Formats: sequence, structure tokens, C-alpha cells
Amino acid sequence: MPNLLILSDKANEYERLVRAANLPDLEIISSDDGQVEAEIAGKCELVLGDPDRIRALLPSLTNLRWAQSTWAGVEPLLEAPARRDYVLTNARGIFGPQMSEYVFGYLLAHERRMWEHHRSQLERRWTPAEGGTLRGKTIGLLGVGSIGAHLAGTAAHFGMTVRGYTRASETCPDIDVYYHGADLLAFADGLDYLVCSLPDTSATGQLVGKTLFESLPSHAVFINVGRGSALDEGALVEALRSRQIAGAVLDVFEVEPLPESSPLWDLPNVFITYHTAAVTYPTDMVGLFLENYARYLGDEPLKYVVDFELGY
Amino acid sequence: MPNLLILSDKANEYERLVRAANLPDLEIISSDDGQVEAEIAGKCELVLGDPDRIRALLPSLTNLRWAQSTWAGVEPLLEAPARRDYVLTNARGIFGPQMSEYVFGYLLAHERRMWEHHRSQLERRWTPAEGGTLRGKTIGLLGVGSIGAHLAGTAAHFGMTVRGYTRASETCPDIDVYYHGADLLAFADGLDYLVCSLPDTSATGQLVGKTLFESLPSHAVFINVGRGSALDEGALVEALRSRQIAGAVLDVFEVEPLPESSPLWDLPNVFITYHTAAVTYPTDMVGLFLENYARYLGDEPLKYVVDFELGY
Repeated sequence: MPNLLILSDKANEYERLVRAANLPDLEIISSDDGQVEAEIAGKCELVLGDPDRIRALLPSLTNLRWAQSTWAGVEPLLEAPARRDYVLTNARGIFGPQMSEYVFGYLLAHERRMWEHHRSQLERRWTPAEGGTLRGKTIGLLGVGSIGAHLAGTAAHFGMTVRGYTRASETCPDIDVYYHGADLLAFADGLDYLVCSLPDTSATGQLVGKTLFESLPSHAVFINVGRGSALDEGALVEALRSRQIAGAVLDVFEVEPLPESSPLWDLPNVFITYHTAAVTYPTDMVGLFLENYARYLGDEPLKYVVDFELGY
Repeated sequence: MPNLLILSDKANEYERLVRAANLPDLEIISSDDGQVEAEIAGKCELVLGDPDRIRALLPSLTNLRWAQSTWAGVEPLLEAPARRDYVLTNARGIFGPQMSEYVFGYLLAHERRMWEHHRSQLERRWTPAEGGTLRGKTIGLLGVGSIGAHLAGTAAHFGMTVRGYTRASETCPDIDVYYHGADLLAFADGLDYLVCSLPDTSATGQLVGKTLFESLPSHAVFINVGRGSALDEGALVEALRSRQIAGAVLDVFEVEPLPESSPLWDLPNVFITYHTAAVTYPTDMVGLFLENYARYLGDEPLKYVVDFELGY
């Protein structure tokens, strides 16, 4: 009988949901603080957990065969000397809807001048200024994984033209034009909105920097929902100060929590959120775990296996 | 050769767009202030214009056969003693996308706690509180005309359950459950969001009032993008003050501009805009006019003919 170890700050909820699935051949142990005796950890073949907690316990997980991460980003498990002698699957395909809500919420707030309208309201001023519309605007998606593909679908729903920048794939039906490799600046040229959903990998480090901002129109808005490492924050601050671009919406940062000293906090037209654009809902996560567990039992390939070299 | 009179504050733009369509058999006269000599007006068989300007000139439009309104609401042309001896078509089918942007912009701002996040930002406070999600929430659409149907499509895109309240029609594929007539309170029961896109007719006067608000959950948000007359504003103020509902987003009012003395201006959780949720874009409007003009020449039924009795 395989032992499942649940390691998460939401361990109780995960345990309840997994138990509700009535898997008779699975023994479940859970911990919300990551404190698990080495002897118990050593018996566990399966882990469902937050990557930082898995990383801390990895030396004791001597029988680990499969770990299902509750996060999309698995950085803690990629750094040497972390072992790689097990199958790691990440949380994928469950963040798209939330990311669309986040990104398009802020895009609509910007286009429809929500903040401006609210200032008028506070002054009791009837101000029938026309807002803009997303329809006919062009959005560029840096990264078209499961999140980017979902964003593309929402952009298409709102009548936008959608460009995608990817390593190689061209499989998303809602992307109007694809760009790769050296085409980055052509991709950026004329964009109204640039949205980055890139993971943290060696290939994406500070891909969004000075040259890219210089290629964007001055009315463009940049949104980062990927990883802070994909962005050169200094270049963004400079681009915003010099009005190279019109604004930014940032959910992820080079250092999190964002240090109090960061100039980003009070730049005009910057909206900051707290790595909360998409949170892991336990019901979604357990759905994915159960699907993968059925594959595991049936010796089928698991969904969303992480390539330790690529980093996603 | 029919004469077309264009009566609109955007008359120049309309004239340019209609001329660009190269209609050889059409003579075009345009006015942006509504000042047209009676003799010239009397020669015009067709009018493309804003209902208030058409109403002012109606007595001189002695040869009028068809008027295409640039607005959805045609109230100025419904009041006695305005003539009804011509075909009136209204602007329809062109506001749905803008209305979706408006409504879902505010829904997402509410769900994702945008204002709260912004207050944290102004205090440089990293506040990783989870926001909500539209997915799985229930939206109720009061009125499922072309605007309501578009809202239903966007709600479905975001994974919401969609209820529709209509006079009789049940033709929109994105409505999960329909309600009619006396089912109004059953329709309201348990809604997370109530959106009114009803026109101004005798049947809709103050349909949204005390009893309806009492049927909504206390976390519900009400959005009005129809006409101010569909809402009992006093009842809304009371419902907001007594926390019967959680908030309101209002684009239309009993009296517009909203009087400075209105208590709505600074009620917490009320967002006011200025009858700007959907504006008429001349390119959309001229597209509709040209389509109807082709039908007019071919003696086919026009699109979106107003029933003077129903009022839409």
C-alpha cells in the first residue's frame, strides 16, 4: 500500500479532500508545518505538497517515487544539491481561469478609466469622458503555457488581436501570430498590452528589460504574473519614470515580499499585488492529484511532469 | 434619390464614414447642432441621428420614412405628441462588447479586491490576502436582449452560472435558467451579482426595488447599465445603508446628470459612472446603418425596428 505524505499549509484541507475520494489502498499522513519524523518520511512513496516544504524534507524522503507540487513554480526543488531521482509533477492547468480574471480585471480597469471615474465620483463631478475598449487592441503574451493559452482565450473573447512569444510551440488556437527566439522586438512592436507568464528558468532571466521596453509604444501597459526573475526591475522603473511605457501591473517580484524600499511601491500607474494573482484552490489541486494518482496506479505517464533541466 | 439627414454631435464623423461607403444614389446633409432649415428637413426621407435631435426636428421632417437612432434608448421619440408615422430603428447589437467590458471590469475589481490591494500598496504593505473568483458564482441578468445575451456569453466564459429574467424569450444559449413574470424573487434568490440591462418602458418602471433587494444575499452586488427608471433609487440607498446588499455599480440614474445632492455619490461600495458604460462608436453605428440601408433599398424588413408601444 503506497503511503502519501501531504506537506502544505493547507494540509488539513488536502487530507480531507483526498480522504473524501475513498482511495482504499492509500495510507495518508499529513503535516502543515513540515515537521515529519525521518522514519515516517522514509516510508512515503508519494508526496503532495508545497515545494519549499518538500525541499526541506527531501533528504529524509528516501523512498520517494513521485511528488506532486501544489505550486506551478518548483524553484526550491531545482537547486543543487536537491535530488532528482523521483518524478516531479507541478500544478498546471488549474491557474488559467484565475489568471484571466486577474489580468483582464486590471486591463479593463485601465481601459475603462476606473480609477479616474472614481476620483470624479469622490468630487461629485459628473464626467462623461469616454473610456477605451479592449476590442481591436493587441495583446502580447510572453509565454504560452497553460496560463498563456487561457489568457489568449479571454483576449479573443474580448475581440483583441493576440500575439504569442514561445520557445517553439504553436499549438494554441487563440494566438493570431507566433514569435520565437530573436523575434522578441518584432513581437513587442506596437503592443497595447504585454503580459508575462514565463516561469523562472535560465532562459527567461531578465528577458523583460530595457530593449524590450524601448520597443513598446508609450501607451503600452506591462503585466507580470510569471516570475519576478523574468523582469529587470531596474529597467522597468526607468521605463516608467521616463514614460517609455504607460503603466505596470505586478504580482511577482525579484524579491518577495517586495522590500519596503522598492521605488515600485509609489510610482504612478503601477499596481502591485502580492503574488496572489492565482492561488491554489485545494479542490482544483486535489482534482489534479487524483487524476495523476489514477495514472500512477495504472503505470501511465503522469500529467505535467517537470523537466529538471528546463525547470518546468 | 433619397436624401439622408445626419443629426448628431458626431455628424462630421458619421458623414465621412457614410460617404466612404460610396452610395451613389444617396444625397447627404449633416448637422451637428440640429439646426436645419425646415425646407431642407422636409426633403429628407431618411435620418441617421441622436433621438433628442430627431425629436426637435420631427415637425419639419414631413417626408420622413425611416429614422435610424444612434442610441439604444429612444425615449425622446416615444413621448406624445411625437409622430409615429415612420419606421424607427434603434442602435442594437453594437453595445454588447462594451457592456461586457464595463460590467466584468467592475465585477473583477470587486472579486479581486482591487481597491483594497491598492490601499495596501499606498501604505507599502505586502498583504497576500486571497481574493475571490467569478468562477462558480451566480449572476442574474434582468433583461436578456442583445446586451444581456452578450453579458451571458462573458459570464459563461468566466465559468459563472447564469440566470436570465425576461418577458418571454428563451433564446440565449448562455443562460442556464430562465425566469419570467412572477418569478422575480425566485430569480433573485442566492444571486452573487444582479445586472440590469432593461430598457425604459412602462413594464420595467422601478422593477428593481425594496422587495427585490430583500431577496438578494447580503454579499450581492447590483449593477445598472439599463435605464435609471428601472430602479427605485431610494430603495437602493436604503438597501446599501442597511447592508441588505454589499454594493452597487451605477451607470444610469433617474435624473442625469446625477444631482450633486444625491446620497449615492458617497455611499461606501457604490461606484458611479456617467452613462458611459457603452458609447456609440461611429464605425459600429455606420456599419449597422449601411446594413439597414441595403435592406431599405431592397424593400426588405429593417433590423431592430422599434415597437412604439413596447418602447424598444
